[in-house]
Amino acid sequence: MIQVVIIGSGNVAQHLIKAFAKSSKIDVIQAFSRQKAVLTHLLDSKKITTDLNDLAEADLYIIAVSDDAIAAVSSQLPFENRLVVHTSGSVSINALDKKNRNGIFYPLQSFSKNAAIDFSQVPLCLESENEADFEFLTSIATTLSDKVYKINSEQRKALHVSAVFVNNFVNHLYQMGNQICNENNVPFEVLKPLIQETANKIMKLSPNEAQTGPAIRNDKQTITSHLDFLQDENQKKIYQILTQSIQNNGKKL
Amino acid sequence: MIQVVIIGSGNVAQHLIKAFAKSSKIDVIQAFSRQKAVLTHLLDSKKITTDLNDLAEADLYIIAVSDDAIAAVSSQLPFENRLVVHTSGSVSINALDKKNRNGIFYPLQSFSKNAAIDFSQVPLCLESENEADFEFLTSIATTLSDKVYKINSEQRKALHVSAVFVNNFVNHLYQMGNQICNENNVPFEVLKPLIQETANKIMKLSPNEAQTGPAIRNDKQTITSHLDFLQDENQKKIYQILTQSIQNNGKKL
Repeated sequence: MIQVVIIGSGNVAQHLIKAFAKSSKIDVIQAFSRQKAVLTHLLDSKKITTDLNDLAEADLYIIAVSDDAIAAVSSQLPFENRLVVHTSGSVSINALDKKNRNGIFYPLQSFSKNAAIDFSQVPLCLESENEADFEFLTSIATTLSDKVYKINSEQRKALHVSAVFVNNFVNHLYQMGNQICNENNVPFEVLKPLIQETANKIMKLSPNEAQTGPAIRNDKQTITSHLDFLQDENQKKIYQILTQSIQNNGKKL
Repeated sequence: MIQVVIIGSGNVAQHLIKAFAKSSKIDVIQAFSRQKAVLTHLLDSKKITTDLNDLAEADLYIIAVSDDAIAAVSSQLPFENRLVVHTSGSVSINALDKKNRNGIFYPLQSFSKNAAIDFSQVPLCLESENEADFEFLTSIATTLSDKVYKINSEQRKALHVSAVFVNNFVNHLYQMGNQICNENNVPFEVLKPLIQETANKIMKLSPNEAQTGPAIRNDKQTITSHLDFLQDENQKKIYQILTQSIQNNGKKL
């Protein structure tokens, strides 16, 4: 069995502990948490430590803490020359203390506290300083997921920025659609099948092929009537900017 | 059997003909198309007319033509006092000629030419001038779909504008994410599970509950590093405006 220690107790740490529990090749022998109680529903209390100096010897240490704590935690580790990875999309591999062999184990998914996740569909983006460690990380990642990628820190940053567009910003457009519905006494649920279909389309078509609507058709009459309809200045502004952006993009294609 | 005539031959017209073909209560007795050949894969050639003056007598006429042709087509109909509806999200019921009884039969979904649609999940938004016609339209709509809504023209306009946000604009954000991936040699497919999960979340959570990311956390360090990373001025501008909008919205909650 490959022995793994998880450092951290947040969403990503907890989802990893759950996912590894299903693997017959990986044994989470210990987890570090400032408060034991946060993890006792997932791990035997004896396997939880609140002291980094008590960390057990393992094949892999996964730091799953908040971005700004990664550097400090990695420098506090009381050992050297072991394999230590973090799980962040936006922190460079260089943030990890050089006294250990470093790597990245970044699950690119939006983890909610209570929602179950099918880990086999979560893309795992791996990076390491040397080839042997990369192969070792790959062997662990493939026990969890069908989607394992070699992604360097620069590529990972691009992915993280893209993820803001396709996840956080997309959800904000759902928020705006919801507001417009509320302001006009229409149930938002009417739009839910369209939201699903919009995401489903992208599984088969490229975003360029899937683009529809008044902006790409340059349907000026509909655009004007929509802008007249919108009363909120922020809604108007975002409608105009995204319409313009779709049209400029269309000209480049 | 309820007898229906479809006027038009585009995506919506064709999807309606297909959907009605599965119903044991509805008979599409005729369709109007400028070119017969467009519909011969769906209807017997004898049932297709290219002349509005040859329209058969029916219980319902569904005008599924482009938005700017609706008014003209409805005024060219060679009969009076029959039930005539259109299928557009953005055209008022008042665009239909008053010589007939008017209504709306608006399927709120993004129809692609070749993609099969599960019509039972397509929201149908109905409106009519009188209650008897509304009940009749409802009886037809419920044979096609589980999601039938009474929506007046003002509400329908709100839905149509919202749909631009949650469909056309969302797809444009997919486009931008795709661009950022391409510019940095990362496969866009890495983001597809996140795109699916972002849409899935909204089926259970409100958009306010589902909002995550650096903007809503006011994580200035990540926001600055993302803006430094983006080189394209348009990408930068949209990142800034949507971040600002998420933060302003967060303050109101």
